[in-house]
Amino acid sequence: MGLFTKDIKTMDDLFVHQLQDIFYAERQLLKALPKMADKATDPQLKSGFLTHLEETKGHVTRLEQVFKMHGIEARAVECPAIDGIIEEADEVTGEVADKAVLDAALIGAAQAAEHYEIARYGTLIAWAKQLGRNDCASVLQKTLDEEKATDVKLTTLANAKVNLRAAS
Amino acid sequence: MGLFTKDIKTMDDLFVHQLQDIFYAERQLLKALPKMADKATDPQLKSGFLTHLEETKGHVTRLEQVFKMHGIEARAVECPAIDGIIEEADEVTGEVADKAVLDAALIGAAQAAEHYEIARYGTLIAWAKQLGRNDCASVLQKTLDEEKATDVKLTTLANAKVNLRAAS
Repeated sequence: MGLFTKDIKTMDDLFVHQLQDIFYAERQLLKALPKMADKATDPQLKSGFLTHLEETKGHVTRLEQVFKMHGIEARAVECPAIDGIIEEADEVTGEVADKAVLDAALIGAAQAAEHYEIARYGTLIAWAKQLGRNDCASVLQKTLDEEKATDVKLTTLANAKVNLRAAS
Repeated sequence: MGLFTKDIKTMDDLFVHQLQDIFYAERQLLKALPKMADKATDPQLKSGFLTHLEETKGHVTRLEQVFKMHGIEARAVECPAIDGIIEEADEVTGEVADKAVLDAALIGAAQAAEHYEIARYGTLIAWAKQLGRNDCASVLQKTLDEEKATDVKLTTLANAKVNLRAAS
C-alpha cells in the first residue's frame, strides 16, 4: 500500500484488496489447522480440523480462480485480523492444562476464525454482485457455505459432547 | 497469565478468561466506533454507528453485571483478535480515497467486528449454560441478539444503498 497515497480508489480496488486479505487469511489457516488438530483430544474434533484443512486448501484454489476470472495476479496482503485471531488462539490454548477444557477452548478459537471468514466472504459476495460479477460471487458462495457448515458442526460437537466433558 | 504455569485449569477458568477477553474487546470498540462514525458519509451509516456506540456501552455494563453475578472482579485481558480487526479497519479505511467507497469499506470492517462478537458471545452462552449459569447466559443473550441485529442492519444498508453508490 502507498505510504502517502490512497491506493483504493474504486469499489473494484476495494474488492481486490479484500480478496488479497482473505487469500492471506486462508493461507495462515492452512498453517494453523494442523496445529489445532494436534492439540485436540476428542477424535471427532481432531478429524473435523483435518477435514476443514482439506476444505481450506479448496478455498485457496477457489480464490486463485477468482483472481484469474478477474484478470489479476493472485496476491496476498497482510491481514492483522486473522493474525490476531490465531495469536489469541495460541495464547489461550497454551494456558489450558486440562485436555477436555482444551478441546472446548479449541472449538471457541476455531469459531472465531470461522466467523471472521463468514463476515469477509459475505462482504466479498455482496461487492462482487454489485460490480456485476455474479460469476465470482457464485464461486465465493461455495466457500461461504462451507464456512457456515463448519461453524454449525463445531456448535453441534460442543453442545453434544465437548462442553459436557469439559465441565465435568 | 503465567509465564511458566497453565492458568486455565477448569471450564470455569476458561469462561472467566473469555469474559475478560470480550470485556477488553467491547471497551476497544467504545473507542473505535466514534472514529468510524466520523469517517462515514452516509447519514444513516453515521447514525447507525452512534446507535451501536450506545448499545456497546450497555454491553460493557452487562459484562460488569455478569462478572458480579459470578462473584469476581471485572477485569480485561488483552485481546489480539479485536486489536487486529480494528488495526485492519484503520489500514483499509485509511487507503480509500472516494467517500462512497469508504462507506462500503466501513460496513465491511464493522461486520468483521460484529462477527467476532457473535462468535465470542455464542461460545460464552454455551459455556455459561454448561456451567449451570443460565442467569449469566440470559444476560449475555441480550447482547448477542443486539450484535446479530446490528449485523443484519449493516447488510441491509449495504445492499439497499451504500454498495450501489460505491459502485456507481
